[in-house]
Amino acid sequence: MKLYYGPLSGHSHRARLFLSLLGLDYEPIEINIRAGDNKTEQFLDLNRFGEVPVLDDDGVVVPDSNAILVYLAKKFGGEDWSPDDPVAAASVQRWLSVAAGKVAYGPCAARLVTVFGAKLNAEEAIDRSHALLRVLENELNDRTWIAGTDKPTIADVALYSYIDRAPEGNVDLSAYANVRAWLRRVEALPRFFPFRKTKAGLEVEA
Amino acid sequence: MKLYYGPLSGHSHRARLFLSLLGLDYEPIEINIRAGDNKTEQFLDLNRFGEVPVLDDDGVVVPDSNAILVYLAKKFGGEDWSPDDPVAAASVQRWLSVAAGKVAYGPCAARLVTVFGAKLNAEEAIDRSHALLRVLENELNDRTWIAGTDKPTIADVALYSYIDRAPEGNVDLSAYANVRAWLRRVEALPRFFPFRKTKAGLEVEA
Repeated sequence: MKLYYGPLSGHSHRARLFLSLLGLDYEPIEINIRAGDNKTEQFLDLNRFGEVPVLDDDGVVVPDSNAILVYLAKKFGGEDWSPDDPVAAASVQRWLSVAAGKVAYGPCAARLVTVFGAKLNAEEAIDRSHALLRVLENELNDRTWIAGTDKPTIADVALYSYIDRAPEGNVDLSAYANVRAWLRRVEALPRFFPFRKTKAGLEVEA
Repeated sequence: MKLYYGPLSGHSHRARLFLSLLGLDYEPIEINIRAGDNKTEQFLDLNRFGEVPVLDDDGVVVPDSNAILVYLAKKFGGEDWSPDDPVAAASVQRWLSVAAGKVAYGPCAARLVTVFGAKLNAEEAIDRSHALLRVLENELNDRTWIAGTDKPTIADVALYSYIDRAPEGNVDLSAYANVRAWLRRVEALPRFFPFRKTKAGLEVEA
């Protein structure tokens, strides 16, 4: 199994974290986004969107980080990580949608500005991030894992990376105690794989 | 079963379309977003994000349009609509991610500007829409349904509404013949439920 990834991409970290949690061996292949490695015809054949990560499992090519989580959970992870029951499956999907939407255009976008110099509206992304964090904080009042299950699911894996590194995009997590406690619970899982930190945003002063 | 919906919300249409395709009876409950019905404490108890649609299946509350599709497919739709095989499930998830991300912040956002007067960057949303449509056009070169399956899946349902109404956000579909042919295939499905048109964007001249 090969994973095409970017070392500072939270979407890539999401996939690497889950591969690690499952204890799976794989070959990480670094894609240099600044050098345009993700826009070569060869890479576009793997993912027309030109985005990392992409999983290649012996010729089965899976682009999209959430799709990679689903693929790995269904193939190797058993039902705990991706439940089949309609209510639990819907709850997991709700947070995968949040990871693909409110996270991508919130804390991920805010961090693209500070870490990669993206020309995006930072204020809008930071506002979106806090709107999301307020809901997460409320949801985590009475649950251990975000989908409301007894055990962690791919929803927790999908949300972790960009929420943890939100301060790099100038999104302050100090008001969100439940969210920070949940991040620590993810980090305490066996075989947790950390996301490389950068000195950007609020982290500069750390 | 009740569905809280907004009549001009594509996310709501996505859920109504699938309820109709499955031939399910339900009570549609209109939420007036302009009047702030989605920000009442009563509605926020159903969905802290204050967004439609929300499904209430005899007390089981499911917010998020993609999550509603997953719930309905798993409970009523059988494996055709939401396959369990790891490869097909990942392919469906990839496009659910696109629906929650590139569609929501592309054609959906562009239409929010013209139909609802949202203060968003229309040019950015239109550019994102065409980037997405170019990929969809390419993917649909050699497939009938977007996830590459023999039959339509919830991925097709999730993408349909905002792609079909993209011209209302000034996103011109004329360059995307494969995409338009795919829209017509969705509309030809038994029990198809149409999305109300508005006279906004390019549709003004229609």
